[in-house]
Amino acid sequence: MLVKFEIHPRLLEDCHRLGRFALSHLLLHRNAGLPWLILVPEVAQGVTELYQLQASDRRELDAEIDTLARYLQDSLGAQKINVAAIGNLVPQLHVHVVGRHPGDPCWPGVVWGNLPPGPSWTPEQLAEYAGALAKLRPLK
Amino acid sequence: MLVKFEIHPRLLEDCHRLGRFALSHLLLHRNAGLPWLILVPEVAQGVTELYQLQASDRRELDAEIDTLARYLQDSLGAQKINVAAIGNLVPQLHVHVVGRHPGDPCWPGVVWGNLPPGPSWTPEQLAEYAGALAKLRPLK
Repeated sequence: MLVKFEIHPRLLEDCHRLGRFALSHLLLHRNAGLPWLILVPEVAQGVTELYQLQASDRRELDAEIDTLARYLQDSLGAQKINVAAIGNLVPQLHVHVVGRHPGDPCWPGVVWGNLPPGPSWTPEQLAEYAGALAKLRPLK
Repeated sequence: MLVKFEIHPRLLEDCHRLGRFALSHLLLHRNAGLPWLILVPEVAQGVTELYQLQASDRRELDAEIDTLARYLQDSLGAQKINVAAIGNLVPQLHVHVVGRHPGDPCWPGVVWGNLPPGPSWTPEQLAEYAGALAKLRPLK
């Protein structure tokens, strides 16, 4: 039986959806305090850990992570990239790719559970993210 | 000029060193409240982000992460694996691989900045970790 893939409602509540790379849906956390991107690979529901991915999917996910990391550093000037698959609250496999710099709202702590309420992204900013990333990697 | 590789002193202060896989030194956080492993790839000092690794090193690092994740789930019964490259405090590239379960001292929060003081590993436990992992992947 085919099961339609759906992004976990908690992720959709917390994030804007910017599009989909070859493997993963690309989300941006609604809190504009810092650039917090999330990749949600469209894989079977039972796959909840990185090591359970097929080798080709793992390589594609790495490449998608790297595209985001380079964009955050090269275009947005992030000083450090935080990359993490956690999933204690949302079991669906997803990978955080967060651009960090001294003086951001959580520095030097982690963002998870620590990000104070912040501004929202404007529609123009959301379009800029999606447009810039689509130039680096096909984004539907 | 060749520069001798050294593990960052903060990591050595926080962790036991269990050995070295083909690419990475393997550390275990001294706090035995939960199984918190750390991989420190022996790469050039300027490499501080995952995307800067050579492709072959990236694949080896993925394989080492996966060995730890499988061990934490299959042998230690972890319900969830947290995998993260953060580096806000220690710039040297290192990857956390943490076995988590409901009821552990930080659940469902993350471990970074959240782990209360806990017991220490016994010498027997340390030997058991190193011995079990050496059976899964060559560990010098």
